Amino acid sequence: DPKLKIFALNSNKPLAEKIAAAVGVTLGKTSVDRFSDGEIRINIEESIRGDEVFIIQSTSAPVNDNLMELLIMIDALKRASASMINVVIPYYGYARQDRKARPREPITAKLVADMLVKAGATRVVALDLHAAQIQGFFDIPVDHLMGAPLLADYFLTKGLEKDAVVVSPDHGGVSRARKLAEFLKAPIAIIDKRRPRANVAEIMNIIGSVDGKRCILIDDMIDTAGTITLAAQALKDAGATEVYACATHPVLSGPAIERIENSPIKRLVVTDSIKLPEEKHIDKLIQVSVGALIGDAITRIHENKSVSPLFKNRFH
Amino acid sequence: DPKLKIFALNSNKPLAEKIAAAVGVTLGKTSVDRFSDGEIRINIEESIRGDEVFIIQSTSAPVNDNLMELLIMIDALKRASASMINVVIPYYGYARQDRKARPREPITAKLVADMLVKAGATRVVALDLHAAQIQGFFDIPVDHLMGAPLLADYFLTKGLEKDAVVVSPDHGGVSRARKLAEFLKAPIAIIDKRRPRANVAEIMNIIGSVDGKRCILIDDMIDTAGTITLAAQALKDAGATEVYACATHPVLSGPAIERIENSPIKRLVVTDSIKLPEEKHIDKLIQVSVGALIGDAITRIHENKSVSPLFKNRFH
Ligand SMILES: Nc1ncnc2c1ncn2[C@@H]1O[C@H](COP(=O)(O)O)[C@@H](O)[C@H]1O
Ligand SMILES: Nc1ncnc2c1ncn2[C@@H]1O[C@H](COP(=O)(O)O)[C@@H](O)[C@H]1O
Repeated sequence: DPKLKIFALNSNKPLAEKIAAAVGVTLGKTSVDRFSDGEIRINIEESIRGDEVFIIQSTSAPVNDNLMELLIMIDALKRASASMINVVIPYYGYARQDRKARPREPITAKLVADMLVKAGATRVVALDLHAAQIQGFFDIPVDHLMGAPLLADYFLTKGLEKDAVVVSPDHGGVSRARKLAEFLKAPIAIIDKRRPRANVAEIMNIIGSVDGKRCILIDDMIDTAGTITLAAQALKDAGATEVYACATHPVLSGPAIERIENSPIKRLVVTDSIKLPEEKHIDKLIQVSVGALIGDAITRIHENKSVSPLFKNRFH
Repeated sequence: DPKLKIFALNSNKPLAEKIAAAVGVTLGKTSVDRFSDGEIRINIEESIRGDEVFIIQSTSAPVNDNLMELLIMIDALKRASASMINVVIPYYGYARQDRKARPREPITAKLVADMLVKAGATRVVALDLHAAQIQGFFDIPVDHLMGAPLLADYFLTKGLEKDAVVVSPDHGGVSRARKLAEFLKAPIAIIDKRRPRANVAEIMNIIGSVDGKRCILIDDMIDTAGTITLAAQALKDAGATEVYACATHPVLSGPAIERIENSPIKRLVVTDSIKLPEEKHIDKLIQVSVGALIGDAITRIHENKSVSPLFKNRFH
């Protein structure tokens, strides 16, 4: 039987440690640093010949550096005769560039998929891809995990599902809201934005009843937090008693932290798919770990069992 | 006939302008910038359907950003129906990782070649690759240009070839020194370093006569400048009257500028294959342009003529 080995690159070592602990192994020995001119230098410091290797790397910011680390590591493992190279990408960068929305645009999410496969990846484990269609960009197996059960857990543990309504901040996210609502046994509402004319403020129309309710907004990622904080204000204005928000991926770029601090959002619940710098650990922000979820998936892949996207935890 | 279009990415716009001027076209309209989270956003702002496109991009520092810009641009051009995508890489990053010098090392120079071809490049134009073998990493045509004639020109124009000896700073660079020596009609010498025992200073043994001579050191790139400045000192100690140095690629990372300033090197002659920040433009440094050389190659490729690696300028 091929031996299971897990290697962490630089984007999210704390999560990799949790994953390894959940699997019951220690992380493989490797050093990933830079030459003087900034080129990536990788040394794998133990034999992996014939092994089933898992690499843990989020392609979060700095996205190009993290992606190149991953590609170079795959190349090194391939040339060192790993039998299987499983790439675990808790946050898949460039996922929003997944179609030509305008002429002469790249489809970078597909380019990244091609690069991973060409480098030598034999399987991908992903978490809440921006669009599930990205799975089809790969000609290798993709296991697609879901963060919603973990986010639901937070609210269920605290009894916050009572009197709650799950709200999608836009019409593109309704299925995601429906999924969370099922876990919470709550109704849903939708914020339907439209701009009547160019250069006129957007109208936030709320479909569903939120007056006197605890609102729980859900999205796949929070980037600059513009959408989610405007939605929170619209819900408050419509009579919501409290507004919570949750999302799998805390991208939190640019003005995000400031906007969240100044918004009516009481708590923003996210996962640790992206490692956040110290200054982004604000009190409002709760990070729940996907370590056990991913660890479970790795163990099942290694044992040739099917990987269910729904994590079996104590509530479901 | 397909139209010739030249696009510049962000690594070296001044060189791209010179290339376009040599070809007699203006640069294609495109914007290459960043989303809030640091992901690269590319907009090609004119139709290129059916055109023969050349992209100018050095994969110098920040190497991963510059490489991803190039890959994403190739993807966008491919999807916008360019008939040919010629990638001009004046400085090819990761070229030194071109073989497994130790077990479990990546061969990143090959990975980069694979990425470029997979993204959709149909031809590569390169300049003084660290090893000419990198041409073989591509399954598409590669035109390999040489900077030596331009470097030779500098010395010939100033009459510095008289009483000169061309010196290779190590035994790996002797062919390069021979080539320059031919242009200058000068003899060659070699610095033969060896370390008698571990943790003992290297012995710099000079093969060839340099006493009373003007020495011209040549390398393909100057990175931290350790090799070249130690070589210059050894030549001075051996009686050289003056020491010049030249190289195609001014990587100049880490302590390079300080070392060059403090060394006996009188002038360091390099090309503009890499754009240097203001603080690296020291008086000792002379940058000669490869704009006309690359422009000439592009014109010849577009006209289906053979591309000679030797630039026909007034001296040769
Ligand atoms: N990193 C990014 N930050 C912001 N917008 C992006 C990013 N990447 C792609 N986009 C744009 O986001 C849109 C897709 O977002 P969505 O409609 O949510 O799938 C496209 O128009 C993309 O051009
Ligand atoms: N960016 C870099 N900076 C310094 N050394 C490097 C770099 N990339 C690769 N190397 C190492 O340089 C050696 C090859 O250099 P060379 O013998 O000059 O071809 C290999 O041992 C590489 O590990």
